[in-house]
Amino acid sequence: MKFSSSQTAQNLSSIPAWKSLKQHAENFSRPEKHLKYLIKKNDRLDKFSLKHKHIFYDFSRQRVDEKAMSLLFELAKARKLKEQFISMMNGEKTNISENRAALHTASRNFSGNSIFIDEKDVMPEIIKTRENIREFASKVHNGKITGSTGRSFKHVVVIGIGGSYLGTKFVSCALEAFADKNIEIHFLSNVDIHNFGNIVSGIEPESTLWIVVSKSYTTAETMANTNLAISFMKEKGLDPSKHLVTVTSKGSPGDDPANPVLASFHMFDFIGGRYSVTSAVGGVPLSLYLGYDKFERFLKGAEEMDIHAKNSPCEKNMPLIAALISIWNNNLLGYQTQAIIPYAFPLQKLAPHVQQLSMESNGKSVTQEGHSLDEPAGTIIFGEPGTNAQHSFFQLAHQGRPFPIEFIGVIKPQYNQYDYKSKGVTNHQELWANLISQPTALALGKEDKNKAKYFPGNRPSSTILIKDLSPESVGRLLSFYEAKTVFEAFIWGTNPFDQFGVELGKKLASGIRNEIASKNEQKDHSFENMDKITKFYLDTMFSGKL
Amino acid sequence: MKFSSSQTAQNLSSIPAWKSLKQHAENFSRPEKHLKYLIKKNDRLDKFSLKHKHIFYDFSRQRVDEKAMSLLFELAKARKLKEQFISMMNGEKTNISENRAALHTASRNFSGNSIFIDEKDVMPEIIKTRENIREFASKVHNGKITGSTGRSFKHVVVIGIGGSYLGTKFVSCALEAFADKNIEIHFLSNVDIHNFGNIVSGIEPESTLWIVVSKSYTTAETMANTNLAISFMKEKGLDPSKHLVTVTSKGSPGDDPANPVLASFHMFDFIGGRYSVTSAVGGVPLSLYLGYDKFERFLKGAEEMDIHAKNSPCEKNMPLIAALISIWNNNLLGYQTQAIIPYAFPLQKLAPHVQQLSMESNGKSVTQEGHSLDEPAGTIIFGEPGTNAQHSFFQLAHQGRPFPIEFIGVIKPQYNQYDYKSKGVTNHQELWANLISQPTALALGKEDKNKAKYFPGNRPSSTILIKDLSPESVGRLLSFYEAKTVFEAFIWGTNPFDQFGVELGKKLASGIRNEIASKNEQKDHSFENMDKITKFYLDTMFSGKL
Repeated sequence: MKFSSSQTAQNLSSIPAWKSLKQHAENFSRPEKHLKYLIKKNDRLDKFSLKHKHIFYDFSRQRVDEKAMSLLFELAKARKLKEQFISMMNGEKTNISENRAALHTASRNFSGNSIFIDEKDVMPEIIKTRENIREFASKVHNGKITGSTGRSFKHVVVIGIGGSYLGTKFVSCALEAFADKNIEIHFLSNVDIHNFGNIVSGIEPESTLWIVVSKSYTTAETMANTNLAISFMKEKGLDPSKHLVTVTSKGSPGDDPANPVLASFHMFDFIGGRYSVTSAVGGVPLSLYLGYDKFERFLKGAEEMDIHAKNSPCEKNMPLIAALISIWNNNLLGYQTQAIIPYAFPLQKLAPHVQQLSMESNGKSVTQEGHSLDEPAGTIIFGEPGTNAQHSFFQLAHQGRPFPIEFIGVIKPQYNQYDYKSKGVTNHQELWANLISQPTALALGKEDKNKAKYFPGNRPSSTILIKDLSPESVGRLLSFYEAKTVFEAFIWGTNPFDQFGVELGKKLASGIRNEIASKNEQKDHSFENMDKITKFYLDTMFSGKL
Repeated sequence: MKFSSSQTAQNLSSIPAWKSLKQHAENFSRPEKHLKYLIKKNDRLDKFSLKHKHIFYDFSRQRVDEKAMSLLFELAKARKLKEQFISMMNGEKTNISENRAALHTASRNFSGNSIFIDEKDVMPEIIKTRENIREFASKVHNGKITGSTGRSFKHVVVIGIGGSYLGTKFVSCALEAFADKNIEIHFLSNVDIHNFGNIVSGIEPESTLWIVVSKSYTTAETMANTNLAISFMKEKGLDPSKHLVTVTSKGSPGDDPANPVLASFHMFDFIGGRYSVTSAVGGVPLSLYLGYDKFERFLKGAEEMDIHAKNSPCEKNMPLIAALISIWNNNLLGYQTQAIIPYAFPLQKLAPHVQQLSMESNGKSVTQEGHSLDEPAGTIIFGEPGTNAQHSFFQLAHQGRPFPIEFIGVIKPQYNQYDYKSKGVTNHQELWANLISQPTALALGKEDKNKAKYFPGNRPSSTILIKDLSPESVGRLLSFYEAKTVFEAFIWGTNPFDQFGVELGKKLASGIRNEIASKNEQKDHSFENMDKITKFYLDTMFSGKL
């Protein structure tokens, strides 16, 4: 059953609920709709929050009322969000422009049920890949697989960029406290030689395993870095085939017996890069870093949230409600930027991950069918951990141009041995004192006859609480943001799984690369075919000076 | 001579140049003003770029024409930007609301000239502090100063948050390749226990020096972390007074002989946190990490840019032009968010630093005199290094909602020993191929009958080139952004040196902290005085579960 085409052909502005939402949003400029009044109602938190097992989502400080929510649920139904999500999870070709399924959820399916694409069950291959990862990680940990000089592996360098990097980086930071395999993890993402230089000055080549992550095995940056790593290993007298692992599509140049490697793990065309951390993309490095068992716990947390997103009715569905509020803020109230502020240092790479997830998925201006949007899509996402952010850009959040914030709090920290109290409270309690205060301060504001000390308030935020920073909780959070992103796209009617917008830059870079290569070959090559500005930059680069 | 009051009393909208700019900006919706036409002109780069010694600023891909620039220069003159900047550098009390000078530039003044505040020369104290830092760092490096067990220092932990942290973090990342003192640097910024736990699991307590950075020595997060560090040292049998250094105001609790420390260095009330990395705030940790000589080279780069900003006429003044373009983009063309994309991995913490610098300085809604602004101020800043950003959020940059970008390129990398070529180019050249392509792709766009593959173009960017990533170049870049931020404020008529907007959250947190402390004291304390939402969060925190 395909929902996509039939559901999104309709412009947002032609949906009755959308028209009512537009009208209703205008009421929110009225003084009585200021958050300071809305949140005073006794049942505010009960009505505008949700709990599901180990996660709590509070949208009581969002600029919504019951009517707004009820219209948003109408919109959800008009857009058949639940049906589209189920369709996606069932293996329908939701990624219309590329004629592919979008089955990241299958990579954490432990139900035992089959999932079919074109009548072929994808689960056996997924399960086989998981098993291969488990076995490989275990052999590295117990020293059965070593580098070419027999030294066991102590460093893992992940060579990959974008979706082959950001998710794994986020999870490895979040779970660093669980890394007990005596293996350090490094990320060689940028083609910048500084990234490579910095990493090789901090590893022992003999005990380093390099994991190349690239679906096509042709990504320019990743290939340049892989070639560099291979030449570095050879220079150190090592056999690259004993230090290299690939995560790539079956049959890609990285999965070619002519180029032997320690192991090769498969990526599938039905899982896009930015949704791939629960596949082998995250599975191989995270299993080496944390142990496969913790990676599987992370998957099970993600699966739990998938099931919640699939099964809960709209009114009880956390990522769906979060997506509705995101669109309300963006298109109805006019906030184009949103911050993610985790009050948890290990989640410091959540915002960069969601930045990619959301901005690459939803930075679109056409519908799934290729028609121009009538309402702009996409949100600019940024963020830093709290309380750091309070001492950085919160001045603007409180007194400058407003932007909605998603606060995240963790109930039990990963460390509990340091319970020294300052001013009568532990560090974790001090953190919470701030986590509790900021949404209130933003919502309430404060009158002051000195205008420099006046706080307008009425600044919207949500607060997400998670039980702890266990692998399961990190998995839930990951899946929450994936589902939220996809639901947003379903509302806008866009395709969250393609990214044609990155092609033009790549194409121009390819032409310039050829020019540079020509000059490297022939010193007298000039850049006469290039436009004047491009020529200036090329000449400057070759001259080595300004 | 005070310019501030007289110049900014006037609303922006009452300035003739502003009115003309508003009118002129409307022309930029016309098809012929698309960047693809503007940049085709033969003299485009010559007319819309500037070079000053080792830095190049290209604004040819900004949506400006000669008339726009000429009106912006009129605005600069109407606002007396140069005079205000000179006045600031001369020690006038530019920070009106707090009745203070703003003399971060004095901290890198090597001219030998005096600078007076209220007829007192501030230079002798600044020079003395620099000398103290040089001497202290040298004694640590040559082992004359050691920890309480006689072990030399191998780890430095900077305890500080916001402006006491972000600048030093940025510079230490940027210059990591120069760190040859066998000292690792860590940052304990967040009150989050994870930040502390993570650091202490990676240091040797006996060889660790803790630097507490706090002007007032009362910042809640910093004090909580300092107390925790002291109790940790005691637990390890170490004498905290031999492992602790403070950077604080003269006479603060951190500069009290009753609480002995290894050394205490002074901060001055005329240098605000976010402008303080060239003072002892950055000086102490960076001199330990890099050596004082490199810190001084960094200062001299910053001084060079200060002098440029002070002496160059508007039409040749890089940070001033950058500020004018920022306001043009923000208030005249309507872009409220801006990205900073350095094609240089060591500059990965530049965006978080400028995020604070800019958003805390300019996230205001009142003039220096406390009147409401007639034109909104402040820009939301975010960024990641390129090419990483291309594989993250550039989809939105190319095909979603546009935002201006500041690209930064480095001519000579810090590493030159890895010159392996992939597809005929080195990694550094591959990086440049991308640096050159992206601004062009954003400006030109591309037609396509398939709307999903259509690029609208006309998306503005600047490109800054710096000669290398030496300490001097990093200093220039730092000072460029400081001057740009201050010039922006002078245009808006706001005070870039205060931050009243962070007070409300602190005040509420203080009340909640007291509630938590009461409950820690008395288990039966309930939170009946708190509003219902706050009570829920407090109960949840104490219950430890959802």
